[in-house]
Amino acid sequence: VIAHRENRRVLLRDVPAGPLTPDHFTVETAPVPQRAAGEAIVRTRFLGIDAGARAWLQSATYRTRLAAGELMPGTGLAEVIDPGQSGLSAGDLVVCETGWQDYALVPVGLLGLPRYAEPPTHLLSVYGNPGLTAFFGMIRSGQPARGETVVVSAAAGAVGSLAGQLARMRGCRVLGIVGGAGKAQRIVDELGFHGALDYRAGDLRGQLKAAAPDGVHLYFDNVGGEVLETVLLAMAAHGRIVCCGAVSQYDGPAPAHGPRGVPGLLITRRLQMLGFLVSDFDADRAVGVEALETAVRSGELKVPEDIVEGLANAPAALAGVLAGDNFGRRIVKV
Amino acid sequence: VIAHRENRRVLLRDVPAGPLTPDHFTVETAPVPQRAAGEAIVRTRFLGIDAGARAWLQSATYRTRLAAGELMPGTGLAEVIDPGQSGLSAGDLVVCETGWQDYALVPVGLLGLPRYAEPPTHLLSVYGNPGLTAFFGMIRSGQPARGETVVVSAAAGAVGSLAGQLARMRGCRVLGIVGGAGKAQRIVDELGFHGALDYRAGDLRGQLKAAAPDGVHLYFDNVGGEVLETVLLAMAAHGRIVCCGAVSQYDGPAPAHGPRGVPGLLITRRLQMLGFLVSDFDADRAVGVEALETAVRSGELKVPEDIVEGLANAPAALAGVLAGDNFGRRIVKV
Repeated sequence: VIAHRENRRVLLRDVPAGPLTPDHFTVETAPVPQRAAGEAIVRTRFLGIDAGARAWLQSATYRTRLAAGELMPGTGLAEVIDPGQSGLSAGDLVVCETGWQDYALVPVGLLGLPRYAEPPTHLLSVYGNPGLTAFFGMIRSGQPARGETVVVSAAAGAVGSLAGQLARMRGCRVLGIVGGAGKAQRIVDELGFHGALDYRAGDLRGQLKAAAPDGVHLYFDNVGGEVLETVLLAMAAHGRIVCCGAVSQYDGPAPAHGPRGVPGLLITRRLQMLGFLVSDFDADRAVGVEALETAVRSGELKVPEDIVEGLANAPAALAGVLAGDNFGRRIVKV
Repeated sequence: VIAHRENRRVLLRDVPAGPLTPDHFTVETAPVPQRAAGEAIVRTRFLGIDAGARAWLQSATYRTRLAAGELMPGTGLAEVIDPGQSGLSAGDLVVCETGWQDYALVPVGLLGLPRYAEPPTHLLSVYGNPGLTAFFGMIRSGQPARGETVVVSAAAGAVGSLAGQLARMRGCRVLGIVGGAGKAQRIVDELGFHGALDYRAGDLRGQLKAAAPDGVHLYFDNVGGEVLETVLLAMAAHGRIVCCGAVSQYDGPAPAHGPRGVPGLLITRRLQMLGFLVSDFDADRAVGVEALETAVRSGELKVPEDIVEGLANAPAALAGVLAGDNFGRRIVKV
């Protein structure tokens, strides 16, 4: 029924050795694929753009490393075109791995239930992996307690913007680290952070000392590298560091050395570093979504989204996320 | 009453910029000090030699940084000479901060109760800070579970030699990392480790892969640096790393960069790094000593000690610990 349309596919042309640019990608046009038994055909409407996608090009992470010539992976919000034996109906919206293309064949077992949210893009932000990562990372791994000083890096990013607000809702004093004065202003004015630190303004150590003179009790780290090294020096004794991401390390050939202070400062200050993946909490996803829905509906939790138009702009959208251009979850409207 | 004797004092001559040598120290001879009200005079019989003492010369840790000209600090097993108002008797043995000298003035409030062990040097090893560090670090922070694979670095050192045995007593499979084939043999033959890895033999990563093909569940780290970096790569998902020391980083001007894999591997493998200090468990010291006494008396826990004769040899004894010459707790017989 859809055999005459075309399927645009964004492929990785070359594995980047340094910073990722749109030139590392190419767009090919192919026929819309034919489904086999056990598959459905979906049409991608929106794509979530993850900074972590850059790490997939660098090494094996929680998935195998991507190779040149492969379709760029990505999570889509997609419309069911041909449901096959999925039990869904044409027109249903689903969140699934589509990759960066117009049409995807999806095994019916991976389609899940039809989803609804208003706006629907929230299914790729607050009710998707970014929101659940913020929720489980902050609440379950971090266990923020009333009155604690909490620092979040990449605080204008998809995860950090939500994680910081969740800590504020638990009665913490929340400081966000961002790059640039504009984002610093916005996380305070629009998202209710108690303070913002701009690492591009220099002397982050001094900024932290001034903003958290009694030390940081909980640090939610999305960036690793030098910012992590600096926050380590600002931690209060017995503080916790939730390790969520290391975006400062993704956009090169390999991670640089780790932060000074590991393990020395961990010992003298009795710190804990706690790595987690959102998939560890798969069994509790519904609990997380429900808590997030309640917070969004009450107006306490704001959901910044940063929409870019056009599948062909997905490579530039990812490069922009790596450069910190976005405010909130970056999403490509296909 | 003892005014005619002399007091040898080992002073830090220069703060070392690189590896510590005996030339960084000088021995002066002074009169035996006169006690004031609230003090007792003790005579140092044995001194515990800590690798961590090198870190005191490098930066502020859990104590202020040491300066040139100061008496070298250290924990002594000492005989009370003049008890003052302490309530102790002349001849009682106490464990206290004496520094590297024959006679020390000690505030009576810091003397504690008289102690007894056979041999008495156990008061500076298994029943002192090394033993309690091994106990609380391994048992309370690490929480080793039956059947887990546990790796201990500096496994022939004062803490590691005991920590590994404690994990074995909990039903774990315990591998020790040491420098040199001789120590590798001895931790297996004499201390009951299930296996030994010699980092000086090269390819520690390959050795770990062969010895722990299903990954390391718990790593008790005394060394930091490259060994930590290598063990990180060998950790099983959801593994724990107890950060006890970083001896590889002490004997230079400042710690180098931290290990690669922090925070990247912490995230993808959901690892925890847990810093601790033995002083966090001060309230439970008696519990720890009792558990250790039971294990020693049953013969399950061996207590290797490495005794060096003569106060003047304390600097060389410390340099030797930093070079990994010792097997078990190094103690200077004054």
